Amino acid sequence: MGKAIPTVEGWHSQHMVFAMDFSAWNCFTADEKTAARNELKAFLADLEEKHQAKKGSYAFYDVNGAKGDLILWVLGPSLEYLAQVERAFRRLAIASVLVQTYSYTSVTEVSTYVKDKLDTEEVNQKLYPHVPRDKYICFYNMSKKREGADNWFMLPPRDRGALMKAHGELGKTYLDVLSEFTTGGCGLDDWEWGITIFSDDDVKFKKIVYDMRFEEASARYGIFSDFYVGTIIDDALFEEIFQ
Amino acid sequence: MGKAIPTVEGWHSQHMVFAMDFSAWNCFTADEKTAARNELKAFLADLEEKHQAKKGSYAFYDVNGAKGDLILWVLGPSLEYLAQVERAFRRLAIASVLVQTYSYTSVTEVSTYVKDKLDTEEVNQKLYPHVPRDKYICFYNMSKKREGADNWFMLPPRDRGALMKAHGELGKTYLDVLSEFTTGGCGLDDWEWGITIFSDDDVKFKKIVYDMRFEEASARYGIFSDFYVGTIIDDALFEEIFQ
Amino acid sequence: MGKAIPTVEGWHSQHMVFAMDFSAWNCFTADEKTAARNELKAFLADLEEKHQAKKGSYAFYDVNGAKGDLILWVLGPSLEYLAQVERAFRRLAIASVLVQTYSYTSVTEVSTYVKDKLDTEEVNQKLYPHVPRDKYICFYNMSKKREGADNWFMLPPRDRGALMKAHGELGKTYLDVLSEFTTGGCGLDDWEWGITIFSDDDVKFKKIVYDMRFEEASARYGIFSDFYVGTIIDDALFEEIFQ
Amino acid sequence: MGKAIPTVEGWHSQHMVFAMDFSAWNCFTADEKTAARNELKAFLADLEEKHQAKKGSYAFYDVNGAKGDLILWVLGPSLEYLAQVERAFRRLAIASVLVQTYSYTSVTEVSTYVKDKLDTEEVNQKLYPHVPRDKYICFYNMSKKREGADNWFMLPPRDRGALMKAHGELGKTYLDVLSEFTTGGCGLDDWEWGITIFSDDDVKFKKIVYDMRFEEASARYGIFSDFYVGTIIDDALFEEIFQ
Amino acid sequence: MGKAIPTVEGWHSQHMVFAMDFSAWNCFTADEKTAARNELKAFLADLEEKHQAKKGSYAFYDVNGAKGDLILWVLGPSLEYLAQVERAFRRLAIASVLVQTYSYTSVTEVSTYVKDKLDTEEVNQKLYPHVPRDKYICFYNMSKKREGADNWFMLPPRDRGALMKAHGELGKTYLDVLSEFTTGGCGLDDWEWGITIFSDDDVKFKKIVYDMRFEEASARYGIFSDFYVGTIIDDALFEEIFQ
Repeated sequence: MGKAIPTVEGWHSQHMVFAMDFSAWNCFTADEKTAARNELKAFLADLEEKHQAKKGSYAFYDVNGAKGDLILWVLGPSLEYLAQVERAFRRLAIASVLVQTYSYTSVTEVSTYVKDKLDTEEVNQKLYPHVPRDKYICFYNMSKKREGADNWFMLPPRDRGALMKAHGELGKTYLDVLSEFTTGGCGLDDWEWGITIFSDDDVKFKKIVYDMRFEEASARYGIFSDFYVGTIIDDALFEEIFQ
Repeated sequence: MGKAIPTVEGWHSQHMVFAMDFSAWNCFTADEKTAARNELKAFLADLEEKHQAKKGSYAFYDVNGAKGDLILWVLGPSLEYLAQVERAFRRLAIASVLVQTYSYTSVTEVSTYVKDKLDTEEVNQKLYPHVPRDKYICFYNMSKKREGADNWFMLPPRDRGALMKAHGELGKTYLDVLSEFTTGGCGLDDWEWGITIFSDDDVKFKKIVYDMRFEEASARYGIFSDFYVGTIIDDALFEEIFQ
Repeated sequence: MGKAIPTVEGWHSQHMVFAMDFSAWNCFTADEKTAARNELKAFLADLEEKHQAKKGSYAFYDVNGAKGDLILWVLGPSLEYLAQVERAFRRLAIASVLVQTYSYTSVTEVSTYVKDKLDTEEVNQKLYPHVPRDKYICFYNMSKKREGADNWFMLPPRDRGALMKAHGELGKTYLDVLSEFTTGGCGLDDWEWGITIFSDDDVKFKKIVYDMRFEEASARYGIFSDFYVGTIIDDALFEEIFQ
Repeated sequence: MGKAIPTVEGWHSQHMVFAMDFSAWNCFTADEKTAARNELKAFLADLEEKHQAKKGSYAFYDVNGAKGDLILWVLGPSLEYLAQVERAFRRLAIASVLVQTYSYTSVTEVSTYVKDKLDTEEVNQKLYPHVPRDKYICFYNMSKKREGADNWFMLPPRDRGALMKAHGELGKTYLDVLSEFTTGGCGLDDWEWGITIFSDDDVKFKKIVYDMRFEEASARYGIFSDFYVGTIIDDALFEEIFQ
Repeated sequence: MGKAIPTVEGWHSQHMVFAMDFSAWNCFTADEKTAARNELKAFLADLEEKHQAKKGSYAFYDVNGAKGDLILWVLGPSLEYLAQVERAFRRLAIASVLVQTYSYTSVTEVSTYVKDKLDTEEVNQKLYPHVPRDKYICFYNMSKKREGADNWFMLPPRDRGALMKAHGELGKTYLDVLSEFTTGGCGLDDWEWGITIFSDDDVKFKKIVYDMRFEEASARYGIFSDFYVGTIIDDALFEEIFQ
């Protein structure tokens, strides 16, 4: 019978996807737009400052397709901190034209099977990630299946360990072309895990996810949410989106 | 074949999640806002009075993410009482900018396998809970699976009892860091149970839910709803949200 | 292999759940509100007249929680009659602030295994129910499962009969504390049956549904819809809701 | 292993369900209403002309309950023709108060196992139906299950043939009290088939669907959509609805 | 156990479905409409120029039924390019009356089992398709099932290869009456593949999809999304839609 392998948690994490009402935005006057842009920049500068000081981190990307227009990922010391950032965001003038259509609340985590590494830089970067500034983001959620004979949570810990080890090793072969962050949302949100990947080549998102889907850990036990992909909002794209 | 283990019921319970239209709220004048705030405070003071008098109880928390902005949990003597509170709430001026997006109607319950304890303070607190004022809330629903070989309701009572006993014992190891309340909604709402947990450390929500997911009672038989987590609305947060 | 047990049908039945836009209602002037209330009262008086004359029946209850605000159940001689009542309702001034969020169209039915009782008062009350005026209502839908080995419609009639007999006998033990009405919606709506229960003690809804869930007919074969519960709209509640 | 039995196709078919915003309709002036009614009548007269000339057919019914208010079924020579009718409809003044909430695009079809009958009137009426003007309509969709051992598309053609023959024979016993039309939407829409039934006695919809559900073809392999039922919009009902 | 067969990717691809608010469009003045039409034409001319220069491709079709009004399929060199086209589209005046209701982000791909053909014109047309201008479009998504014994990703590569070969051979028998394009969305969007078919005879969409559903690759392992079908927007239809 199953038994949880203990985990260690780091920062709290919240992904937020927003749909933007461009018609409503275009009802702003030029001055109102400038003010709203500056206010949003100040909000982001505050997140950047914490990111630089390694007191938190964040990512802000444009989202492709009908699922939303923007994704904001915020990491920090507590659930209360995330709630404060969310409230600060929705007080922005521009928030009146943004609807939060999806969110995921979780915490960074590592399994204690890496107990000997707990104070290493590698584990530190998993628990307190300094999110990179790659061109593309890919975010999705995952849970483990509990259906008939395919019940992850009824597997003996040894079997789960073997499957996760194979999974991790395949994942590592991609680490030179992408960065991957796992957060756990059990008890905090609907899906058990959140996966956030960054790369300068979005085809790598397809390669890694497709490759892994053939492994038993995913093939038999993985359940996947919607996928959100998008492009980093640098200064030029900021001006284009919020023009 | 299955057979229900009798239960004893206490108070009626209603969880209500609300989304707040901040743009609409910002169309209120300063005076209208002050009046609306005072009216909401009076509504809450009334619940607090019943809570102090142990004629009912309640909780009022801010909700993280896209699932809603506020959660109000009300407990009291009858379904009619809950309906009265709900109607009083929607007559508030501020209710015009709040949409109830989720609710769960149920009753507190204990199984009569604790028959010898029925008049004890422990059972009394389960049937007529004096809800704590911890920093964080976690609320979700649960039903038992009825799929092929994984059919909780077809298990012999003895097997169900053994699974629930193991479940309860794991749960008890968390009682020093959190408070947990179970309400039953069978015949009153879509999910069979509602679980409401309070703690000053939200990571404990993750720990307990993750640990329990590996037990057979959850792993094979548990079905879980969306999870709602949030922060207590104390005076300072009240002023910040409804500014 | 399965084969349908013939049924006898009585009245046509339509359950309608409405969400009320209280902000829009509060835009009515006092005179408009009075006129709308009187118009709705006349509409209900018309249903009451048919109810008294036993040419039809109806129920009108307030609904708890986010699923809706009002439920109207109408019974009468034909599908056309139901459509007329629905059209009459939506021509009311108050209908402009009500959105029908759920409905269930069906007919009252009895199985002919009670053939010898077909002209009795007991069967008559099932086919042409004189709906009681108990304090609380509980309404939900049910279908029978067709999944792998759990396929109700592939069971031999004798097995189905035995399961339904046990089901019925457990149900009868509740008849002193509640009234239950079954309507069949196969070919008329999405769910195969509608269950409407009335009682002065809503905890009985929980008791009967929970007890029955452990029987094989429900445990292995029952699929349940959302549950709607609420309080009867007597004169006082009418004034309170539509104030 | 399965293999498709060839089919012969006739007309293209589109079912469209509309919700009507009666509040918006009541904002029309009396003159605007008259103009809109006349325009809609002209649109329907055009469909009637094609129906009389047997160049196409159609049905226009009021829908019971929360699923919609109107259903329009159009049959004609091509997908382009259906698109033209849909565009003509949405250019009507009244279309501004109608939202299309569901549609099903398909083609009439017969299996070539009736090859020897291909030029008979019976098959002709299936491929180019002259839709009757019965009082009631029932429309729903159906697909065949592909789950584990219950996989219609993995059955040998002989087994599928035997199941469909039994299915068809039970269906024929109802042909004196109703008319049934099957259209195939594979590759054109989400469901594999559309079933449209007309009768002057809507209880017959219940009888045939319930009876058939116990046959193996439905019991093990049928998946059913929502059901739409309603009353024919004759001149009197037209005036009542669009008053 | 499964293992991914390597793929080669070509262009990035985005399908976008839009619902058009015709009432809002009719609030445009004649001049505003002309300007909006010209702006949309210029946007399409830009796509056409890239299509002619073989630097990208696109398709623009009217959609039948309630699922949407327009479908725009864009192909080009990068995810960023797709995002730019999407942003350019939503800045159009007409975009204020269009809501994107569905999208699919993916890349063209070929399996390297055709490694010897990698530089051939056949493979080139799959990776960098010059989309045809047939009268009708059919677009849908597909994933492979992972349920119990029907788990595509747990099949040995040899078995998957044999199933896909049979699948491909049946598909080829249709190539004289339609063109089919496959794009892979694993890691980029929710469904694993997108299938886009063009033909001058939409009944061929039904024939190919129905025929293939009986093959084991589809019958046991295929999961299908909604289907979108429609008519090409040539100059005449452009004027009719946007009149």
